[in-house]
Order: sequence, then C-alpha cells, then structure tokens
Amino acid sequence: MLTIHRLEQREARLLIEGARQRAEAIGVPMCIAITDESGNLLAFERMDGGKTSSVIIAQDKAYTAAAARKATHDYNQVNVPGNLAFGIHTEVGGRISSVGGGLPVMVNGEVVGGIGLSSGTPQQDMECAQAGIDYFMQQSAGH
Amino acid sequence: MLTIHRLEQREARLLIEGARQRAEAIGVPMCIAITDESGNLLAFERMDGGKTSSVIIAQDKAYTAAAARKATHDYNQVNVPGNLAFGIHTEVGGRISSVGGGLPVMVNGEVVGGIGLSSGTPQQDMECAQAGIDYFMQQSAGH
Amino acid sequence: MLTIHRLEQREARLLIEGARQRAEAIGVPMCIAITDESGNLLAFERMDGGKTSSVIIAQDKAYTAAAARKATHDYNQVNVPGNLAFGIHTEVGGRISSVGGGLPVMVNGEVVGGIGLSSGTPQQDMECAQAGIDYFMQQSAGH
Amino acid sequence: MLTIHRLEQREARLLIEGARQRAEAIGVPMCIAITDESGNLLAFERMDGGKTSSVIIAQDKAYTAAAARKATHDYNQVNVPGNLAFGIHTEVGGRISSVGGGLPVMVNGEVVGGIGLSSGTPQQDMECAQAGIDYFMQQSAGH
Repeated sequence: MLTIHRLEQREARLLIEGARQRAEAIGVPMCIAITDESGNLLAFERMDGGKTSSVIIAQDKAYTAAAARKATHDYNQVNVPGNLAFGIHTEVGGRISSVGGGLPVMVNGEVVGGIGLSSGTPQQDMECAQAGIDYFMQQSAGH
Repeated sequence: MLTIHRLEQREARLLIEGARQRAEAIGVPMCIAITDESGNLLAFERMDGGKTSSVIIAQDKAYTAAAARKATHDYNQVNVPGNLAFGIHTEVGGRISSVGGGLPVMVNGEVVGGIGLSSGTPQQDMECAQAGIDYFMQQSAGH
Repeated sequence: MLTIHRLEQREARLLIEGARQRAEAIGVPMCIAITDESGNLLAFERMDGGKTSSVIIAQDKAYTAAAARKATHDYNQVNVPGNLAFGIHTEVGGRISSVGGGLPVMVNGEVVGGIGLSSGTPQQDMECAQAGIDYFMQQSAGH
Repeated sequence: MLTIHRLEQREARLLIEGARQRAEAIGVPMCIAITDESGNLLAFERMDGGKTSSVIIAQDKAYTAAAARKATHDYNQVNVPGNLAFGIHTEVGGRISSVGGGLPVMVNGEVVGGIGLSSGTPQQDMECAQAGIDYFMQQSAGH
C-alpha cells in the first residue's frame, strides 16, 4: 500500500496567505490556487480585482506543477518548436500550463501539492507563487 | 452603463466559514465553492477529507445558483422527464447542476453571488449551503 | 450542387426584435439567439438583466432547433426513459437541448434558421421564441 | 460589496454598429462579438458572408480582451516560444486568444466589456474592433 503525503487545508491557507501578501505589496490583485499532490484543488482565492480569465489559469498552473511535479516555467523552457516536449501545453484538454506562475510544493523531497498564480505578468505570478512557498515553509518550520 | 453588485473576498470567506462550521458539526468534510454574481469562482475550500469529485461539483453548483439565479434544488424539481425543463443539467458543457446544494446569495433583492457545497448527501449539502448564507447575513448585519 | 436558403442578418434582427418585444411585455429579460440553417450563430442579444448561464443555453436551443430541424420541446416529449430517443440531450457535447424555447424558422417548408430563448420558464421562453417568428413572418410578408 | 460597471445592451449595439460600418467600408463581412466585463456574451452579429469558424473566434477574442483586460494582440506579442507566457492561447479550454482582433472596452479607466472581430486578416479585425470602440466613445460622449 502506498502512503501519500498531502497538504492539509491549514497549510493550503498558509500558501495563499504568503502569496496574497506579496501580491498586495506589488499592487497586483491575483487569483491564487492550491492543489494537492494529485492536482485536485484544495483552496482558491480571487483577490478583489483579480481577472476572471485567471480563475482557470491559476488552477491549471497549480494542477500542472503538482501533477507533473514541475514548475510551469520549466515546462516553458522545453516547450519550444523542435524540442521533443513541444506542444505539451495542449495536453490534458489544455490544462497543462507552460506559462510561468505554477510551482510544486515540496516537503522532505516529496511533492505534496502545487501553487498557481495568475493575473500579473508571468514574472509577477512566479514571484508571488514563490512568496507563498516561502511563507509556508517559514510558518511550518516550528511544527 | 449597468451597475452590478458583487461579493467581495471578505464576504466570500464569511460564506465559507458558516458552511464549514455546519459541515464540522455534522461530521462531513465538504468542498465549498463561492462564485460572484456571474458564476466565476471567488473562493474555494476543500476541507480535509472532502471528495476529489466534489471539487468540480461544488463549483458547478455555485455557478448554476449564481448565473441562473436559482437554487439547484429548484432545478431538480423541474428536471423531470416529461417536464419542459428536462435535460437542463447537461447544458453549458454539463455545468448546470440540478443536484441540491447550490444557492444564490441575495442582498437587497439582487443576486450578488452563489454558494455550492458537495461531498455529503444533497440534503447535507443544502443544509451547509444555507448555513453559509445564514452566517454571512448575520455577520454582515452590523455593516 | 445544392442551393441552401439561409436567414440574412436583417431577418435575424427581425426575429430578435419580435422576441424582445414579447420579453419586455412579460417583464422577463432574455437571452435571444438566432442561428442559420446549419446551427451556426447569426445574431445574439442578452437583454439587460438576462442570465449569464442563458448565454450558452439560448445558443444551444437555437442550434438544436435549426440543425435538428425540430422544436426543442418536441425533443422534450421523446426524451423520456424507455423511449428510443432518451438521452439525446447529452449528444454533441451536450449542445442538443430538450428544454422548451428553441424553434426552427421555416420559410416555404424549409428550415432556414433557428431561434432560441433562455432566462424565463420554458413556457415563457417558448412564448417569446414564437413571438419572434410571428413578427418575422409579418414583417417579411410584404417582401 | 464590490460595485462593477458593465456595458448595457444599447452600448453593445453601438460597438457593433461602429465595427460593422468599418467592415463594410473595407468590404470584409465580419463576425462581431461584444461581451460584458467578465467575458460573458452581450451581443453578436455575423454579417452576411461572415465565416462560420469566426462565430467562436470572435467570441473568444472578446472574452479574452474583457476577462484578461488585455488586447489579444498584446497577448500575441508575448506568446512566443521561450517567452514565459508562451502557451497562454490554449488556456481556459482554448478560449484565450492571442490572435489580433480583441480589445477591452474601457470607460473611466475601467474595463466594462470586450469587443472581438473575426473573418478578415488580424490587421483588418483589429482595425474594425478599434472602429467599434471609436464609434461607441463618440456616440457616448454626449451622455
């Protein structure tokens, strides 16, 4: 039998909290999605002013990062014509995202979830996703 | 130009809080989705133990309740073979839900959002959705 | 070579005009969709206050009525468990509608388009769809 | 509670009117779609001779421009292999468009809707979309 480690809701909220704080600091209202290790949504927040198109995009970035265990910007690098991974972004009904802003959440070397941000530039989305992970790691350190 | 009223994130969290409290009281971990008045996701929480299939079902119930301005259990009553509304549940790519557990959120006679619950029986989902609205109304009363 | 007769845009506007007038008379803001004889959208209007979920439903009703050359309420009658047509509403990715409110537009015994209404009860939708056709026929009579 | 401003039907018709006049002037029958600020369809017209594939493309351009608050040709510039936004065009079930011809409609610094054109070259689509906005602004100036 496999034993799976999965983010709990309390931890998902920490990831959102850290991402939201950075989004507020840079003045970009974001959509923030947290998935479990299988890519299924755990928590979501559209900050007041977040884009409606980003509702799905943020979820897809988090899904991709967790399910494929890969940052979406890493998929971006290989999703180039001529490269054998080219076209990956249309897989799974288009849910695989190669747009920066999705990061796997790793604990003890295992992927336990994913975080996806959307509404800013890819760089802003990446920055806020990382801030979510940093905050989660810091808050979890004492536990 | 039309002027539309829409739930803000703080209010979406109140709806989730009220629904979660009831779900904890009856011992059923739920997926809880809150949409704006057009049916676009504002906030989502999968309680620890909530079903993965309910991730989409809860969102679809909230979408239906807000966008169609109708409780999903009201659609259920008319979605009967021979009734002129039969088959409504497959519309909009199957997103229209006629399963109990989705309620429009109304303020001053206007639909400002929707709440959708999934993971329990339809009756449990309905009870927790209503608890979310009750809590939201009570907490908002002083504002 | 086949010669196809198809609504023109001016005629599509007449269909919408007639449907809107009735919708205003009964006080129900509607989504009104007109398709050509193949089911492809020609014209659409969401009256102020029409439901966002009805954007797709109205189009699917018009699509069904034109492409299948059948009123959606006629599909409703045969879409009953045990009947050989049962389940038709999930075909074409769920676009086939068996909810009342879609009517084929016929001229000289040929289907030249479809009209679909959504936002009211199926009976209201049907009434306004018929009003659209009546107005179109009356305005076209002199041509 | 948030207060949102949204195009009304009368304004959507002005946008279509301006776009159609330009399309007629350049001799290209177009599909013209207008959405509200969330990306839901408000009005649509397929000019006689407009392409059937453009029915969806025009709607997706208008959806993208409104929901993502960005001209589709701006997405085009960043949707290049190697750029971190590459692949954005397959998101939201492929509804995000990076083909020129979709523009957000802005009033007083807010996005209140979107316009999408399709059937010509992207340059023609862009020209007619802009003509729709110009006409709308001019006609609204006196209000």
